[in-house]
Amino acid sequence: MAKELKELTPRSVSYSQWYQDLVIKADLAENSAVRGCMVIKPYGYAIWENMQRELDRMFKETGHVNAYFPLFIPKSFLSKEADHVEGFAKECAVVTHYRLKNNPDGSGVVVDPEAKLEEELIVRPTSETIIWNTYKNWIQSYRDLPILCNQWANVVRWEMRTRLFLRTAEFLWQEGHTAHATREEAEEEAVKMLHVYGDFAENFMAVPVHKGVKSANERFAGAVETYTIEALMQDGKALQSGTSHFLGQNFAKAFDVQFATKEGGRDYVWATSWGVSTRLMGALIMSHSDDNGLVLPPKLAPLQVVIVPIYKGEEQLKAIADKVDPLISKLKAAGVRVKFDDSDNKKPGWKFAEYELKGVPVRLAMGLRDMENNTVEVARRDTLTKQTVSFENLDTYLINLLDEIQQNIFQKAFDYRTANTRTVETYEEFKVELEKGGFLLAHWDGTPETEELIKDETKATIRCIPLEGDKTPGKCMVTGKPSAQRVLFARAY
Amino acid sequence: MAKELKELTPRSVSYSQWYQDLVIKADLAENSAVRGCMVIKPYGYAIWENMQRELDRMFKETGHVNAYFPLFIPKSFLSKEADHVEGFAKECAVVTHYRLKNNPDGSGVVVDPEAKLEEELIVRPTSETIIWNTYKNWIQSYRDLPILCNQWANVVRWEMRTRLFLRTAEFLWQEGHTAHATREEAEEEAVKMLHVYGDFAENFMAVPVHKGVKSANERFAGAVETYTIEALMQDGKALQSGTSHFLGQNFAKAFDVQFATKEGGRDYVWATSWGVSTRLMGALIMSHSDDNGLVLPPKLAPLQVVIVPIYKGEEQLKAIADKVDPLISKLKAAGVRVKFDDSDNKKPGWKFAEYELKGVPVRLAMGLRDMENNTVEVARRDTLTKQTVSFENLDTYLINLLDEIQQNIFQKAFDYRTANTRTVETYEEFKVELEKGGFLLAHWDGTPETEELIKDETKATIRCIPLEGDKTPGKCMVTGKPSAQRVLFARAY
Repeated sequence: MAKELKELTPRSVSYSQWYQDLVIKADLAENSAVRGCMVIKPYGYAIWENMQRELDRMFKETGHVNAYFPLFIPKSFLSKEADHVEGFAKECAVVTHYRLKNNPDGSGVVVDPEAKLEEELIVRPTSETIIWNTYKNWIQSYRDLPILCNQWANVVRWEMRTRLFLRTAEFLWQEGHTAHATREEAEEEAVKMLHVYGDFAENFMAVPVHKGVKSANERFAGAVETYTIEALMQDGKALQSGTSHFLGQNFAKAFDVQFATKEGGRDYVWATSWGVSTRLMGALIMSHSDDNGLVLPPKLAPLQVVIVPIYKGEEQLKAIADKVDPLISKLKAAGVRVKFDDSDNKKPGWKFAEYELKGVPVRLAMGLRDMENNTVEVARRDTLTKQTVSFENLDTYLINLLDEIQQNIFQKAFDYRTANTRTVETYEEFKVELEKGGFLLAHWDGTPETEELIKDETKATIRCIPLEGDKTPGKCMVTGKPSAQRVLFARAY
Repeated sequence: MAKELKELTPRSVSYSQWYQDLVIKADLAENSAVRGCMVIKPYGYAIWENMQRELDRMFKETGHVNAYFPLFIPKSFLSKEADHVEGFAKECAVVTHYRLKNNPDGSGVVVDPEAKLEEELIVRPTSETIIWNTYKNWIQSYRDLPILCNQWANVVRWEMRTRLFLRTAEFLWQEGHTAHATREEAEEEAVKMLHVYGDFAENFMAVPVHKGVKSANERFAGAVETYTIEALMQDGKALQSGTSHFLGQNFAKAFDVQFATKEGGRDYVWATSWGVSTRLMGALIMSHSDDNGLVLPPKLAPLQVVIVPIYKGEEQLKAIADKVDPLISKLKAAGVRVKFDDSDNKKPGWKFAEYELKGVPVRLAMGLRDMENNTVEVARRDTLTKQTVSFENLDTYLINLLDEIQQNIFQKAFDYRTANTRTVETYEEFKVELEKGGFLLAHWDGTPETEELIKDETKATIRCIPLEGDKTPGKCMVTGKPSAQRVLFARAY
């Protein structure tokens, strides 16, 4: 049983099969009866809840409030912003009727043809249009600004090729939508939220990210500027993990949202939007996990420490339980998520394999000899190492260890990224290096044409124009034309 | 401005207009561009978040975990449970297409007729069907049971007559769906969750509720037994505020979910489901609020204490700010949600009116004379009384006061309900008393026919067969036939 449970396709055989196996076997998510829609299982959802809690705290600390806007968008709304319609009014779920009726032949229910909507409704693929239609009524004067709203919601994009967490027809996300009196303030907000996402990715998910600006081709439909955080997965492919958009006055103009300025004039409102989704689950899984299963950073792990007793008979179990009880109390008081697994229908070996698969950061095993020696066996999930540790001050030891594991997981991912980020000079070199995977820093002439050509020939895209790092100008590796700075290329999910 | 903002239609003039005014003017919610779908505004959403947090904690303390299931349900699923289809497969949003395309005439987007779904998808009105179709794969043996899942989600029921929070086409809710090995365990679970809802209503919302069983007519479509909590609004109408269903083996049979029993046999799985929704916001508002605005129980108020400085000039403001600063720190450390409103573009009178409208439980006003006397003016929202209180140990005073307000709001609602719950003997008496509003306890012969007759003639429905209270048998007020116990009647939302 233990063996069968643990069996994942090794990453070296098939990275994508390994990912699929892991998501299923670690009970994170599964496909549902509805094409492209997933079921997020309790263990996967518990990780998502931890992500939500931290992000929500960060949003509120930066002055945002939550609200809720309708699931449905009138079809005509999608046409109001010219670029937006191109990007979003395509593959989406369309509600055309509002009633079913019993099939006269008794075979079940059929759509009632008389209950046809006058205007079709679209299940939101993103909410700029319905929200800006609402903001129109909220904003009269500069005194009504800024509006700093976020919503936690489900959205639907009718993707043809789906993968659990990475690309699903329905997914969960948050979308921030802010309204400002000045261009500067809106731009500042968009950048501020990019940094919130970057902090969250690095300090909670332990995923190092590059922050930068998208090229025009890769920009959000309707945005003036799209900021992005880009992470590197273990197979050398990039994953866009969060975006923040400076929308200019595009949506205010589309929905005629004007305000009385402080100076007594009238102007259109400036906007941003920003979002991260359950795609972050994919980033988390693919950044750290190994052929034995999940590796979770302690800050997001639903269970941080598990204690497995090794015993024969009720008496030994009771002795071990009595011994660890005060430890558990101390850990809980310190906010550590800890569990004593005294279930008697599974062997310790099975439990070890299960918790390894589930990525629990620290596993303690305690048997008779440990009791006699006042020690415990501490196993780290990140390094797969074991150590015998004294029971004295074990709570402090474990709290420090969780910190150390969080750091170590980040450092490992950071080192991997460093080793897989290369600077290239020529297009030939670019093509050779690209086959090794990872990020490539190269000069580009800034034109969509060159970007397209590179994409067509190599499948590499510009992940971002980095905000930080080397800003030296140069010459485009393809055309030789001037380049303002190196940009970050990769093949991406 | 202050006057205009505060102006609500008095309850005595029109209770329903008062409710509508209050929801809009207190910034709780508003209608959206999509028929029947509301926008929950930040202040309303903050109350809902407080409800969610407490309920979620209570669910987890009783052993439940969260998960997420698809928004869409294949049309055929709704037909699988015979009663369920009657109740839910009627007024619902039907997705028939998955793509839009540009209108050749350039006027916008149209539904692509080629992108028609083979089977239509229904936006979930409730999730029993999709969840039991999923559970089929999760359950093989008694060792896989119980499953105790909850989900926080949006659902859609195409209501024709909608009212903010009380009845909307889309609403937010939680739905628990549990699977058990025995009938007894499932029944116990359904009753346990009824009590969780009752505790939440009484101890957090300060809304007294009757707990009971629904008559067959009022039962959830597909349930064997529906338990309910019923509250009384200030206009004398009842509001069903939460339900918990014992589903028997109905859904397990519909989706063929069998398991290997401990005894070596096979059986269908036993089920419950239970839910509360944003309708609770309506219950909260209508239970306590008055003609001046919202009255919020402190445990759910987004802001519990607001401090308004009365000053002239920066210097006075600074002196007041310095004085209240340590108080604010102490209150925050004690978990009190407190705000110092030093905004200089609004007069104190305007602020007073605004916080009254928004139902902030305690308002402190501090001016120069208070500074000199080391006192502060404390205004209670629930009683609309003011008192001058010493600044010494003010934090303790306020923490106790918040408790007292919570109790007082509950007691007031409880006394109102007691005064408006009457025992009647004859059907004539029933009709007379019903016009006064409130709950009526009367004998009923237990038949759907008599229940229907009463409903047709008086618009009163059986809210529940109470679990607690007088169980003396008697004779039906309409037919004279035997009645097992008095049941609770009312006109209801």
